[in-house]
Amino acid sequence: MTIGSVQAPAACCTPLAAPRMSETEAATTASVFKALGDPARVRIVNLLANAGHPVCVCDITPSTGLSQPTVSHHLKRLTAAGLLRREQRGIWAFHTIEPGALERLRTVFETGGTR
Amino acid sequence: MTIGSVQAPAACCTPLAAPRMSETEAATTASVFKALGDPARVRIVNLLANAGHPVCVCDITPSTGLSQPTVSHHLKRLTAAGLLRREQRGIWAFHTIEPGALERLRTVFETGGTR
Repeated sequence: MTIGSVQAPAACCTPLAAPRMSETEAATTASVFKALGDPARVRIVNLLANAGHPVCVCDITPSTGLSQPTVSHHLKRLTAAGLLRREQRGIWAFHTIEPGALERLRTVFETGGTR
Repeated sequence: MTIGSVQAPAACCTPLAAPRMSETEAATTASVFKALGDPARVRIVNLLANAGHPVCVCDITPSTGLSQPTVSHHLKRLTAAGLLRREQRGIWAFHTIEPGALERLRTVFETGGTR
């Protein structure tokens, strides 16, 4: 046993404070992270972030090497998760990053995060 | 057809600039998001962020309502994804948030993100 020889800023087996995040909040946030758990969706979000303006699905397709139905599916999934905002313009749907999307994810990592 | 009647800041079907994120980078980042795509892991990360110091698995268990093997499994998954740092102290393993974990995820959402 070498516990005594190591500096321990936290006493072992002193339970932490009650969770700051409710189960409902955690489930909602996890579903957002889950939507980003796919390389194609990560690239689409990064493309939209770099564009900085609403982008048509037809403008995204050439940059991803994916078919338009596949890109549309990913956009739908990201929009449903609250990461993108969708705007219909005539026959085309344009997407932008939802303001505050990153902010919501960031709270998980911050002291005093939620509540 | 109502396209002409709507103000369009982006011309339709003008391909975006080449992706700023390589497929390898996107795959790595997606695997980190995927690790967070679980409510229990979101809560554990939030608990550790709020603790602000290395925490023993035995201190996490009471706050989550999960068994110690389940918490250990989640900690292993989060550590493998690069989100947590693990430090062995005698018989106990302590975990902290990996500095820079959030920063890496944030780049996905930022202009000029990666590269």
